[in-house]
Amino acid sequence: MSTTRLTIKDVAARAGVSKAAVSLAFNNKPGVSEATRAHILETARAMGWEPNLSARSLAAGSGTVGLAVCRPARQLGLEPFYMEFISGIESVLTERSSALLLRLVRDLDEEIELQRHWWKSGQIAGSVLVDLREDDPRIAELSRIGLPAVAVGHPSLTGPFAALWTDDAGAVGEAVRYLAALGHRRIARVGGAPELGHSIIRSGAFSAVMAESGLEPGRQTATDFSGEDGARATRSLLASADRPTAIVYDNDLMAVAGLSVATEMGLRVPADVSLLAWDDSQLCELTHPNLSAMSRDVHAFGAEAARTLYGVLSGARPEPRAVHTPVLTPRGSTAAPPPG
Amino acid sequence: MSTTRLTIKDVAARAGVSKAAVSLAFNNKPGVSEATRAHILETARAMGWEPNLSARSLAAGSGTVGLAVCRPARQLGLEPFYMEFISGIESVLTERSSALLLRLVRDLDEEIELQRHWWKSGQIAGSVLVDLREDDPRIAELSRIGLPAVAVGHPSLTGPFAALWTDDAGAVGEAVRYLAALGHRRIARVGGAPELGHSIIRSGAFSAVMAESGLEPGRQTATDFSGEDGARATRSLLASADRPTAIVYDNDLMAVAGLSVATEMGLRVPADVSLLAWDDSQLCELTHPNLSAMSRDVHAFGAEAARTLYGVLSGARPEPRAVHTPVLTPRGSTAAPPPG
Repeated sequence: MSTTRLTIKDVAARAGVSKAAVSLAFNNKPGVSEATRAHILETARAMGWEPNLSARSLAAGSGTVGLAVCRPARQLGLEPFYMEFISGIESVLTERSSALLLRLVRDLDEEIELQRHWWKSGQIAGSVLVDLREDDPRIAELSRIGLPAVAVGHPSLTGPFAALWTDDAGAVGEAVRYLAALGHRRIARVGGAPELGHSIIRSGAFSAVMAESGLEPGRQTATDFSGEDGARATRSLLASADRPTAIVYDNDLMAVAGLSVATEMGLRVPADVSLLAWDDSQLCELTHPNLSAMSRDVHAFGAEAARTLYGVLSGARPEPRAVHTPVLTPRGSTAAPPPG
Repeated sequence: MSTTRLTIKDVAARAGVSKAAVSLAFNNKPGVSEATRAHILETARAMGWEPNLSARSLAAGSGTVGLAVCRPARQLGLEPFYMEFISGIESVLTERSSALLLRLVRDLDEEIELQRHWWKSGQIAGSVLVDLREDDPRIAELSRIGLPAVAVGHPSLTGPFAALWTDDAGAVGEAVRYLAALGHRRIARVGGAPELGHSIIRSGAFSAVMAESGLEPGRQTATDFSGEDGARATRSLLASADRPTAIVYDNDLMAVAGLSVATEMGLRVPADVSLLAWDDSQLCELTHPNLSAMSRDVHAFGAEAARTLYGVLSGARPEPRAVHTPVLTPRGSTAAPPPG
């Protein structure tokens, strides 16, 4: 295969015009006739040449979207949420013939430096910011440089950026009230990474709704969202003297792992213990029994994030919007607690 | 937030030098003293300015890697293989502070056009080509334009590109011989998308090794790799008069779905039917019983693809290499067939 590159000079020579004429034709500027412009574009196309546009106009023209994710690489491939979220973004980008520039970062400082570089050097038209923390340093740093972005998180976390969020507190309330209505008194929660804004919101909502329902404070465990951590947390909960009769998980991967642990420990789901998953990817319908879940369409959520960003890029200033709030989808893993 | 952009003129003014001097300093060219160069770079850094490099030098310098995947967006988020493969690529890119330009395409013509555009306009340093077909049109078109790439597929499919593959035929042989050694005579295979090169290789190997083992030709079903299709195929196989006593799946998602279908139909795994998964993501260890699988480290496979591409970019001409060939990992879903 040859790696010889055609230049604008080659195109000009073949078309029998000056280099300047080629440039005018491609930049759609006056100075060449319509017939000449058509001839030049056709010649270039036939030769397989495209102008080496500036990075900025490329990114703006092609609408490349940046996404930096601060998670270990292995985990990205295992947790359904991100993959579905990314696939949702891609579904909108594909319609627009745009692409996603994806990078894993080790910490938020690296992400700030990266987003700054992507934006200043013109590699992206805008970004989707995810996994917002309390007092997230990205908000000040990236709004200061004018990065167009949509921030996926509660408006209390997203500063001046367009915010897209799901009502986590409301969903936690619905989950706990459902289990309490079934008769559960000892409800535990296997939460996600404790530094994330939505973990803090869910954790606070869980405590509050347990108290409102007149229940003892339920045990809450933090994890890294992995199946392994979910299994460990479940084993610890189910081995305790006052083991819970119901467990709410912060994603579905951990709930699938929890189901396996319950079976391994000789407990029947849901007769002995009820399990309630979160996010509800296809996984929940692949287990036996199928997992009850707080369902939301993560793919559609990703698509909405991309559409909101393109809105921002066209000059919209969208209000913060709660979308795709998880709804209770009861399946085979939740029932009344065992008697006594 | 302000979107005013600094220009090279602003930097030159602040540093008290000419625009040409700023350009020389950033391009590391002679014509400015070391002290002046340092002063200019420091001034630009303090102002938050970076040169608007050409797209080509950006892509080359930052080593952006292109990946186009011809699968429906929803499926990308559900099938563990791609997510783990992408996470493996990202693990190598992160070490190099590079990013992945990811795009879903509807067909190979769209991919050819996209790769051509990415390469000609300088948005990528090279690409990873996946899901190769027999007589894949990408091979001729993309080698003709000199795109640096690694092609993930058997060397019979990859033309002049650096090839990285797994020995699918060998792995299918190992799977069938293992099940035959356990005593199975009726073995079925739930395969993937029939147009893919590796599906064709696995399908041919399955027929050949069944014949070699003196077994009746096993039934083979094509699917789209989804859990839903895997469940449908399993239901059809297990409802048939001469139902197989063992089923080999082309990924793990379909095997998980198959396990659920067997349970739903009142069949015990492995006492009544053995199930053998492929690829072996974390999913296989989350089910009960755990799924036996032809395991390979898909994350490491993705990382190897990225490293091979960077080798190609540094001028290497790597030999085709079979890596991470699946190895049999027996767990709880395979055993001797039921008597009779």
